[in-house]
Amino acid sequence: MSKSEINIGLIGFGTIGAGVVEIFNKNQDILSKKCGKPVNLKKVADLDITTDRGVKIDESILTTDVNDVLENDDIDIVIELVGGYEPAKTFVLKAMENGKHVVSANKALIAKHWEELISNADKNNVRFSFEASVGGGIPVLQPLNECLSANRFEAIYGIMNGTANYILTKMSEEGLKFEDVLKEAQDKGYAEADPTFDIEGHDTAQKLIVLTKLGFGEYVPQEKFHVEGITKITPEDIEFAKNELDYVIKLLGIAKQTNDGLEIRVHPTFIKNDHLLASVNDVFNAIYLIGDFVGPVMLYGQGAGRMATASAVVGDCLDIIFNENKRISYGPVESQVKSMKNIDDIISKYYISLTAVDEPGVLQTITGTLNKNDISIESITQKTNIDSESVPIIIVTHETEEKNIQQAIQKINELKEVEEESKLIRILE
Amino acid sequence: MSKSEINIGLIGFGTIGAGVVEIFNKNQDILSKKCGKPVNLKKVADLDITTDRGVKIDESILTTDVNDVLENDDIDIVIELVGGYEPAKTFVLKAMENGKHVVSANKALIAKHWEELISNADKNNVRFSFEASVGGGIPVLQPLNECLSANRFEAIYGIMNGTANYILTKMSEEGLKFEDVLKEAQDKGYAEADPTFDIEGHDTAQKLIVLTKLGFGEYVPQEKFHVEGITKITPEDIEFAKNELDYVIKLLGIAKQTNDGLEIRVHPTFIKNDHLLASVNDVFNAIYLIGDFVGPVMLYGQGAGRMATASAVVGDCLDIIFNENKRISYGPVESQVKSMKNIDDIISKYYISLTAVDEPGVLQTITGTLNKNDISIESITQKTNIDSESVPIIIVTHETEEKNIQQAIQKINELKEVEEESKLIRILE
Repeated sequence: MSKSEINIGLIGFGTIGAGVVEIFNKNQDILSKKCGKPVNLKKVADLDITTDRGVKIDESILTTDVNDVLENDDIDIVIELVGGYEPAKTFVLKAMENGKHVVSANKALIAKHWEELISNADKNNVRFSFEASVGGGIPVLQPLNECLSANRFEAIYGIMNGTANYILTKMSEEGLKFEDVLKEAQDKGYAEADPTFDIEGHDTAQKLIVLTKLGFGEYVPQEKFHVEGITKITPEDIEFAKNELDYVIKLLGIAKQTNDGLEIRVHPTFIKNDHLLASVNDVFNAIYLIGDFVGPVMLYGQGAGRMATASAVVGDCLDIIFNENKRISYGPVESQVKSMKNIDDIISKYYISLTAVDEPGVLQTITGTLNKNDISIESITQKTNIDSESVPIIIVTHETEEKNIQQAIQKINELKEVEEESKLIRILE
Repeated sequence: MSKSEINIGLIGFGTIGAGVVEIFNKNQDILSKKCGKPVNLKKVADLDITTDRGVKIDESILTTDVNDVLENDDIDIVIELVGGYEPAKTFVLKAMENGKHVVSANKALIAKHWEELISNADKNNVRFSFEASVGGGIPVLQPLNECLSANRFEAIYGIMNGTANYILTKMSEEGLKFEDVLKEAQDKGYAEADPTFDIEGHDTAQKLIVLTKLGFGEYVPQEKFHVEGITKITPEDIEFAKNELDYVIKLLGIAKQTNDGLEIRVHPTFIKNDHLLASVNDVFNAIYLIGDFVGPVMLYGQGAGRMATASAVVGDCLDIIFNENKRISYGPVESQVKSMKNIDDIISKYYISLTAVDEPGVLQTITGTLNKNDISIESITQKTNIDSESVPIIIVTHETEEKNIQQAIQKINELKEVEEESKLIRILE
C-alpha cells in the first residue's frame, strides 16, 4: 500500500476479535517493521463494548457504531468477525463499496454467498481474504490457491471441525458414549450449547465448499451434496474398527475427482490407522490434498480458537498490505469439474453394523441380500451375546456402489430378524 | 506482469528440470488461464541436450548455450536447477543483473550465499523465489513468511531429508542395519552413490538455515551450529527405544528460541510415538512450527523428487507472474535472536548406549559418574548377555545440560570397564 500508515477496523469484538487485539498488543512491532510502515488497529466496533474480553484495549478505539468503521476514510482494511449471514453480509458489501479491503473468518457467509461477495470485491477493486474461514490458523487457502497452483487436484480430504474431532478422539481413547463426551466438551467450552452445526457436519460442509471452489474451480452449494454428522457413532463401532480392522473414525469432508465427475460429501469415515489423517486428534484440524504433481500434502494445526484464528486473520491483513494490487483468482479460472457425482454413485468400502435375533439362518439371509445387490463381503462378524436374544453383526464390504448398499440396507432393515435400523459407515481406502 | 505473455527460461535439464517440462506439457492450460495470458517455457539450457529425459520436449527450445537464457530479452523468469555453487551462482547473479526474476531449488547455494543473492535481487529490483529449496513440493516458505507472519516463532522442527528418513523408517520397520538399508536405498535410487550429504545432515542443515532466516530473521551459517548424521544409529537403539520408551527416531533440524538465545542444531532425535512428526515416514518430509499465536502447525509432503519439486518451482513462477511488484521481506525485518546458544548449553533428555564388562559394581561406577555431573537418571537398563563377558547398558536421563552429559560421557569412556565409545542420542520432549 502506498499510504504512509495502514489503519485497520475490526467489526465484532468476540473471541477471535479479542485474539486480533492481542496480536496487536503483542506483535504490532513486527507487523509494522515487516510492512515498513505503522500498522494500526484504529477502531473496534461491537454492540457490546463494556464486557471484559480479557485483553488490554485502548477504550477510545471502541465504538458501538459500525459506521465508525465502514464510513471511516482513515480505515483501509475491515476485518469482519461478526459471523453468520446478517448483518455480516451488509457490513462486508458496504466496506467493499467504500473501497476498503475486507478480511473475514465467516465461512457460513462465504460458503453461501460466494459469487456475490467475490464479484463485489472485484467490482470495487478491493481484496477479499478469508484464510481463517477454513482450518482456523492453518495456512491452507493461500497454499492451495498459490503455492500449489501448478497442480490439478485429485482429492481434498479435511478434518475441519475441532468439536467433532475432539468428541471422536475422546470416544476412541476412553470408550465413552457420544452424549457423554458432548456434555464434557460443552462443559469445557469445546462445544457450543447448541452443537448441531458442528456435530451434524454443516460447519465442515461450508469449509468444503470453499476448498472445492479453490481446488477445483467449482462452486457447489451445500444442498447439492451429502452431509452427515457423527451423532450415531457408538463406542462399539469405534472399538470394533480399532481392534479388528485397524481403523480410526474421523468426520471427513471429501472432494474428489473421478472419471465420472466430482464427488463431494461430508460424513464420518473409517480410515486406516497408518494414514497420517488418523493421527490428527483432539481439536486439531488437517487438510490433506493430492495434486497431480505435488502428490499428497497435509496441512495441520489448530482449526479454531481465539489465538490461532486471529493469526490467520492478521496474516491476511499483512498479505493485503504487502500486495494490494495482487491479481487474485480464487481457484482455477475455469471449473475443472465435468459433472457432479451423486452420493448414490460413489464407490466405497462400507462398514455395516446391525442387530439381529439370534436364530439359525439369519447370517445366511443377510449375506444373501448383500449378494443379490452385487455386494461382496470382506468380513462378517457375529458376536455372541449370552444375555440377550439378539446379536450384533458387523459386516465389512469390498468396494461397491453406494446405491447397491442403500438398496441392500433397505432390504435388510425390512427383514423380520433385524431389530434395529442398520448403520452404515464409509471406509476410506 | 504487464507483458502480454510470459516466457520462462530453464537452466538445468536434470531430474527436476524434466519435471518442470512435464508440468508445462500437462498443465500449461491452467497456468495460462490462471495468469490471464500465455505462460511459455521458452528455452531449456543444459550441456547435455541429447540424453532422453523421458519427457516430450520441442527440440527447438533446447540449447547448450546458457546465454540463450541469460541474455535473452524475451525471457522474464529464469529457473535455476543447475545445483551446487558454481556455475549456478554466476548464472543466478547474471540473470538478476539482466532484469530477470529468478526461481531456484538450490538450497546449497541459497544457504551459503544468502546475503549476496538477496541483496543482488533487491538491487536489480527482481524477485528471487526458492520455495522448492526446503521441503520440495511442500508449501512451507510462503506460509512461514506470509500466512503466519503475525507470529513470533518459538520453534521450528523439520524432517527435511527424504533419504535419511527412508533409511530410519526401514531400519525401524524391518530391524535392518544402517549399511544394509543404505545399500537398498542406493539400488532403488532413493540415495545417491555418495550419500554423505544426506546421511551426515548437511542437506538438513542447509534447509534449516533458510527456515531460521525466515522464521527468526537470523542468518546462521552452517559452521556455527552442531550437525550430526545418522550413521551410528543401530537397530538395537531403535528397537529398545520403540519397545521400552515408545520413541521413534528421526533426523531433525531444530531451531528453537529459548530465554538464553536461539538453539540451532541437526541430529538424530528420539521423539514420542504420539508426536505427529513420528508418523512422517519413508521419503516424506514435514516441517513442524510453533508460533506464539497460531500454536503448532505441521506442513507435510514429498520433500524431493521430480514431480513434487517441480510443482513448487512452477508455483514460484506463478507467484511472480501474479505479483511481480510484491514487496517481499525474507523473514522478519529485524533479527528476533538476542544471542546464539551453543550446543553445550542446550537442555535435553538423553539416551546413552554403552557396552561394559559384566562385573559387579559397573553400574554403580557409571551412575556415580553421571551423578557427579549433576545428571539425574530416569531409567537404566542392563541387558544380560549369557554368551559374552560384556553387556549393553542403556541409560535415559532427565533433562540436563549438554555440557554435563559430554563431561560425563568422557569420564565414562575413560573407565576401564567400558568397552566401546558411548553413544548419545538426544530426546525431544
